[in-house]
Parts: sequence; structure tokens; C-alpha cells
Amino acid sequence: MSANVSALRLRAVRIDTDSENVAYLARGCTACRVDVLRAAQKVSVSVVGASVEPMLAVLNVVDDPSIVGPDELGLSEQAFAMLGVPTGTPVTIGPAPRPASLDIVRRKLQGEPLDLGAMRAIARDIAARRYARSEIAAFLVACGREDLERDEVLALTRAMLETGERLDWREPLVADKHCIGGIPGNRTSMIIVPIVAAHGMLIPKTSSRAITSPAGTADTMQVLAEVELAPARLHEIVLRERGCIAWGGTARLAPLDDLLISVERPLALDSPGLMVASILSKKLAAGSTRLLLDIPVGPSAKVRSLADAQRLRKTFEHVGRALGLHVEVAVTDGTQPIGRGIGPVLEARDVMAVLENRPDAPQDLRAKSLRLAGRILEFDPDVRGGDGEGLARDILESGRAAAKMASIIDAQGRRLEPPGPGRLVAEIVAPRAGRIVGFDHLRLARAARQAGAPASPGAGLDLLVRLGDPVRAGQPLYRLHAETSGEFDHARSGCDADAGIAIG
Amino acid sequence: MSANVSALRLRAVRIDTDSENVAYLARGCTACRVDVLRAAQKVSVSVVGASVEPMLAVLNVVDDPSIVGPDELGLSEQAFAMLGVPTGTPVTIGPAPRPASLDIVRRKLQGEPLDLGAMRAIARDIAARRYARSEIAAFLVACGREDLERDEVLALTRAMLETGERLDWREPLVADKHCIGGIPGNRTSMIIVPIVAAHGMLIPKTSSRAITSPAGTADTMQVLAEVELAPARLHEIVLRERGCIAWGGTARLAPLDDLLISVERPLALDSPGLMVASILSKKLAAGSTRLLLDIPVGPSAKVRSLADAQRLRKTFEHVGRALGLHVEVAVTDGTQPIGRGIGPVLEARDVMAVLENRPDAPQDLRAKSLRLAGRILEFDPDVRGGDGEGLARDILESGRAAAKMASIIDAQGRRLEPPGPGRLVAEIVAPRAGRIVGFDHLRLARAARQAGAPASPGAGLDLLVRLGDPVRAGQPLYRLHAETSGEFDHARSGCDADAGIAIG
Repeated sequence: MSANVSALRLRAVRIDTDSENVAYLARGCTACRVDVLRAAQKVSVSVVGASVEPMLAVLNVVDDPSIVGPDELGLSEQAFAMLGVPTGTPVTIGPAPRPASLDIVRRKLQGEPLDLGAMRAIARDIAARRYARSEIAAFLVACGREDLERDEVLALTRAMLETGERLDWREPLVADKHCIGGIPGNRTSMIIVPIVAAHGMLIPKTSSRAITSPAGTADTMQVLAEVELAPARLHEIVLRERGCIAWGGTARLAPLDDLLISVERPLALDSPGLMVASILSKKLAAGSTRLLLDIPVGPSAKVRSLADAQRLRKTFEHVGRALGLHVEVAVTDGTQPIGRGIGPVLEARDVMAVLENRPDAPQDLRAKSLRLAGRILEFDPDVRGGDGEGLARDILESGRAAAKMASIIDAQGRRLEPPGPGRLVAEIVAPRAGRIVGFDHLRLARAARQAGAPASPGAGLDLLVRLGDPVRAGQPLYRLHAETSGEFDHARSGCDADAGIAIG
Repeated sequence: MSANVSALRLRAVRIDTDSENVAYLARGCTACRVDVLRAAQKVSVSVVGASVEPMLAVLNVVDDPSIVGPDELGLSEQAFAMLGVPTGTPVTIGPAPRPASLDIVRRKLQGEPLDLGAMRAIARDIAARRYARSEIAAFLVACGREDLERDEVLALTRAMLETGERLDWREPLVADKHCIGGIPGNRTSMIIVPIVAAHGMLIPKTSSRAITSPAGTADTMQVLAEVELAPARLHEIVLRERGCIAWGGTARLAPLDDLLISVERPLALDSPGLMVASILSKKLAAGSTRLLLDIPVGPSAKVRSLADAQRLRKTFEHVGRALGLHVEVAVTDGTQPIGRGIGPVLEARDVMAVLENRPDAPQDLRAKSLRLAGRILEFDPDVRGGDGEGLARDILESGRAAAKMASIIDAQGRRLEPPGPGRLVAEIVAPRAGRIVGFDHLRLARAARQAGAPASPGAGLDLLVRLGDPVRAGQPLYRLHAETSGEFDHARSGCDADAGIAIG
């Protein structure tokens, strides 16, 4: 009658369950009482005769003998790889013990601050996949509720860093740039990286794909080049070109951060402490030594006041310093989108217009990129304070940045037939005359997503007005692009109801 | 390129994923970009041409064409049943929209109290499986952090009640009994139900299985009889016998409560508000009209002070009254286990000893059961105030309670060869002389679980001492029973390190 006496034969079930280990057990399992295990939800899987710690997995009960038979235990792809023993290996299964660090999570829920030992215990259990996603959510909510103390952020960052690999570029100066996000357009990285790399400074920039926004840097770069590069190839490209603009997901540098983000994102927790730990652990794992951080401030941006930006800056600086990463913060204008396009193709067009010094290039994107690139160039001890921005402008205007971008694109794999803007186009017009007084970033981002971005790369918005512009009733505010009629109609009716641009 | 243009053919994947809908998509899916959907984690599944609301599901990516092919969309058992259309139906898939009520959860996380409309929106989305388990966890943590206001508990209870079915017994008096738990042994329900049913009062008692404890009432009753009864059969038994002692899981009366508990339990959230909503929504769904609630108070019980017990009592009364359930609270002694056995077989033995009026029956279990049964009997308008306990004693001593129990056992399905106590036995002894001054309920429960309870029904502890007893060094405190040597050794070494009984 006991739940864990007889052995089962291990079998790989070729289902990718992402961050959660799943164990598949036939309902008529011969070696255990499925109903009892079921109640525990999580099970512990042990290799017979091996002294390794049992692996924990969520239990799924299978009614199809072609997936698992009554004397088999199936494991999802990631779980099978983690257990690391061949098909057919005898394994036993029992109800999972509660991970000991869940008691620490519980204490945090009761308001107790956590020290490094506590954060380490939690990080190790999460990294070993001993937490269900619901348990990770409880930890994140506990961290987010009154926000973490500065030293808790440091402890969490350190603990996260310890669970993964770290790149070592064997150079003293490895530059990086990050924007905390929230501003549509704002594709400065794709201009900054070629400028900095053309100067010869190492800037191995990896970026995320959009999750809730209409485009991430990786989505926009993908319009022009391959972005999913195997770690060895990426390394080689960076050493040759001094820079890259790639998707950060393949390197799996900060696996714990990826996991926490995947749970945190749908909850929209919005905790500054968690954000700092996430960004800095990732940058440190990537081997960066100097980071320029863009914090846009505006009424519909992530950070809404200068006071909040200052507080955030200090947390970044404190944690960065303790862990050997020099962080410099640029507080920037987040009152309106940067550039005209919102969506991968339209943003890539803006980026290339700036790099190619075209007269119609969006000047706000150009100016912001030069300002930020200048601050990064001043990480170079040979660049005098105050000379960075001029140097960046020289590199851009001389065509060296465009040449470097072409070279990076070729190295990553140029896309020979880049997609164009979505062919279904509608103009969204001003309902009345007046002056542009505000942009609702969330509304604009949602409109671009409804139009199909980023899955349809040509979908999105092309802005035609800026803050302070006078407009007539009926004057176009932006053009909506889509690729399918369903998305087009959906986005258009949303924009007609609320264009996301305030006229005062 | 869009994520949701072409249709896929629906297929049932015979995997039971419990409370979470899972969609299975081949990595090489022909109709959508799996990487884009992947990033969203949850997908929305729509039946082509149907106007029903899309179903949300967690995405698993499949690398085995025998599970799902490139032009197929697989759904787990519960999700397939929920969608309610046949295999082969054309469906489309896209990134899931965020359930609107998650914004309410977010407001709750920021400290905002929730009204009935808010609780309803959340309850409906959770009941429609629109939340991932991590999102449910965030809601529960938000509710638990500073605990809910009384009227929030009422709103949550009402919202939970509205998501499920309600039984109607078509009788004005339907009695029920519940203990908030936390005390080892304490198997009073199995004595109270036969007494009350023998009096003729309707008491359709359903119970849970143990999750974190060594035995639930359903586990203990299962030693003697079947407890998993189809709803129609259970109904018939109750009408004939006036009572039952069954597992509550088959009726699926409060599906939302089951779901919340399954997420809450591993987190050990311990929120009084959530507990009240859970218990009362379940009792109301079961059609109860009068509830006697046992709140044990003691230093290692769930409720540790009389003040906490009073506060909890008032919340129970307030919510019960508003929803038409008369709740009566008995605050009882939770300083030590009730009865001798801890574990299904040992507890069932205690219960039968009391019912059969055996001289060696545990007197504490007998006395407590009579006191509680007496209060329930006084729900009968024909029983005078103060006469209940005497009446209960008459029913017990006359053998009518034992006869009713035999009759209920036969009706549910008598177990012909009930298991005996675990054959591996060790005595755990007092390390020194003194007097018994305290019981650590959590430690004793853990020891019984380590010994194998409830999966091994004969496993557990048999207590030999009570509070205040003098003991010599080396005198046995309890007997440990187990069925397998691994569990036996594990439990014994734990008990040797900490017996869970304090000697002063």
C-alpha cells in the first residue's frame, strides 16, 4: 500500500514543459497509489541505488498507454535531462517533501527581511526546479509587496548570479546598455552598439523579445538579421566585430532570472527591487563591467517621477558596486515615444535612417542615441570627460557606424528579403483641433500589438505628431499598419475609440 | 507570419493536468509561430466559426508526432472536455489575452479592499480556468498578507458559492460538523455522525483526505468502508441512513474551493479569511443549514489564543448569517492530541472502541465527541437546551450509535479485510524523568507521515501518555508503527532526535 515501494522504468516523454518539471504516471500505475500522490501534486523521483538528491516534479496522470505504460514513469524533456540517466533506469516515486526554503518564503510573507543565506536557499531550490510555479509566484509577490530593502536586493542578485554560468571576456572593459523599458519605439541600442563597437569598445549586447510590448530589440534586429545565435558563434562574432545585437535567450546565462521573469510577467508585479536584481544579475552573468542604464521618466512611463528615478538609481548603484559592476544611470525624457515607428519593421526603418544619416531620420532617436553612446564612450579612459557625445557624432556622421552595423548584420546572418510595413494601412486622425499634450504609452503599445506586432513584424504604428504640435480636426496622428484584416479591424476600432494621444 | 491565422485540428491528449488547462502544440507547427506563443506562455484557443469565448491554456511544446502532429492542437483531458467540441474540429490559437480580473488582483496586492463585484470577476475567471496556477497563487497571497476584512470574506464566500452547484436536501434542518484541524487524532466526526443520524437528524458529512496531516476523516473511514461514492449513490445513502462519512472530492461541489486549496496548501498561507471562505462555501454548497464548528486552541494548534479564536468565531458567524447558514462555534482544548492513535488504522481503532463502549476506549475522544454531538442534537427544536449531551450519551451507551455506524459502513461498502497496524513497531521513550508538559502537534504529525501515514494506513503513532502524566526515564511515550523498513528507520531516527513531547 505504500506509495514508494516498487520501481518504475524511466521513460522520456517528449513534451517541453519549460520551467516546470513534469512527471507522467499512468492512472493504473502498478507501483504506487496514484490518488495519494495526486493529492500531494508534487512528487519526488529517485534513481534506484543512486545517492543523488531526489528530483521534484509536478504530477500529470496519463490515460494513454502509448505515452506511459503502467510500469513506467515518464519525465518531460527538461526533467529527463536534469535527472541525467538513460531510458529504462529503475526509479521510485513518492510524495514530494516540501522544499525547506518555502518556510523562508512564508516568513517573508509575514514581513521578515531576508539575508543572503535565505536568498541563497530559495534561489538554489528554485534553480533545482523544486518549486512549482505557484510557489515561485508566492516568493515574487512576497518580495514585491512592500518592496525589498536595498541589501535584500543585493542578496537576491548575488544568489541569482550564483545559480548560473558567468561569461568572462578577458578584457577589463566590457560595456553594456540597458533601458528599463516602457517607452514605445526608443530603439537606441541598435544605434549605440555600432557606434561603440566602431570605436573599438567591446559591447556584446543581448536583448529580449517583446512579451507585453509591440517589439523588443531582438524582434526589431530580426527584421534585418538572424538573432538566435549559438553561444560559441555569438562569442566569435563579438570578438571579431566588438559587438552584437542578439537575442539573449540562447545563452541561458541567467536561467533563474528567465524563470522568475516568466512567472512575474503575467502578474505585472512591477517591483523595483525585483527589476534591479533581474537586470543586474543578467548583466553580471554576461560579463559586463560597465553598464549605462536608461531610466525614462514620464506620466505614462514605468517610472513616473524624478524622485522615483533617483531612488531606483541608488539601488542600481549600490548593488552594482557591491558586485563589481559600474552602473551609470541616464534619466531621460519618457513623456513621448522615441522615433516614429512602433513595431519591428517600422522601428528598424527608423534605426537605419539614423545610421545612414538620412535627412528624414527621426531627430529625437538620433539625439538620444548620441547622448547615450557618448556616455558609454567615456567609459574609455582615453576619452576625455565631455568628449563622448562629439566622438559618437563623428562616428555616426562619418558612416563608420553604418559600416559597423552592416558588418554586424552580415556576421549574424543578413536577412535577404526583409519584410516591409504591413500593407493594410489606416490613418488615425485627431478628433478635434488643438495641441498635442500627452501620449499614453500603454494605449499605443496595445494598439500596435492588436495590429499584430511583434508576431507580424510589419504591423504597428507610424507616428506623425510630437508633443506640442498643433493639429487640426481630422489631421492624421499616426498610421496604423497591419498584415491581416482581422487584426487591422480590431486595432482600428480600438484606436478610433481611444487614439492614445491627448489633444489639449 | 501572424500567430493566429491558419486553423489546426483539435485532438484530445489523454493527460490529466488537474486544475490547469494545457495546450499541446508540435514544435514544427505549420499554422503558428511557436516561439512567439511560447513567450506568452498562455494561449487562447478558439473554435473556428463558433462565437463562444476563447479558452485559455498553458502551452506545452511537443516533440513527439504521435502525441500531436504539426497540423494539430492537443488539449489535456479537462481542457478538451471544457471546450466541448469533437476531435478534428478546426481551432485557431493565439497569444492569450491577460484576464481582465488580474488587474483587480494587482490592486489587492497594493492593499485595496475588494468588493463583491471584484471577487466575482476573479472567481469567474479562475473557475473558467483563465488563471495559471501562479496567478491564483498571487491572488491568494494578496488575500492572505494582511488578511481580508470581514466583508471581503463574505464577498469571496459568496463569489465562490456562485461558481458551483448547490445541493438541496429539501429538509429544513441539515446538520454539519467541521473542525478547523491541526490536532492529531481528534477523529470525532466518525462518532458524532452515527449519534446524530441515529437520532434521525440529517448529517451528510463529507470530509477531505489528508494533505499535510497523517490522516483525514476520509482516510480513516476508508479503513472501514468505501468513501469514494458517486454523487447519486451518496445521496441515496444519506436519505436512507440520515448520514454518511464520505470523501467530499467526488461530488465536486465547490470546484473553486478545491482549486484554491490545491494552490494554497503547499504555500501554507494560513490566512483566517481564506479559511472561513473555504469552509463556509463548501458547507453551503453541500446544502447544510446548521454547522457546528470545532476550533481547538493550544500552543501548537492552528489557533493559539482565545482572542484569536473569538475573532475567527465572529467572522464565521458574520459570513454564515449573511449567507443563511447558522454557525455555532465550540472552542475546544487543543493542547494535546485527542484519542491515542495518529494515522488511519490507529484512529479507526479508537473510533470503534468509543462506539462499541469498550472500557479501554480513549475517554478524551469519547467526552469531546459527546459534547459536540450534544450541541448538534440541540439544533433539533424538540431537544431542550442542555439535554443534548445526555441524549448523545444515551444513544452511544445504548448501542444505537454503533448500530448506525455498522449500517452506514454497510451502505457505503464495508471493507472485508481491514488493514491492521503497521507491523514494524518501535517504542519511543522518555529521555529523562519528569512530567508531560506539552505536545508539539506539528512534530507528531510529521513523525506519523514519515512513518508512512496516510498512504500506508497502518502507519502512525500510538500515544501512551497524556498531559500531566509523570514519566520515568526510558518509559515509552508512544509506539511508532510502519509498514516498510525505509519509512520505519526514517521516522524512528526523527523521533529519537525530537519526540515531539515535552517533559518538564
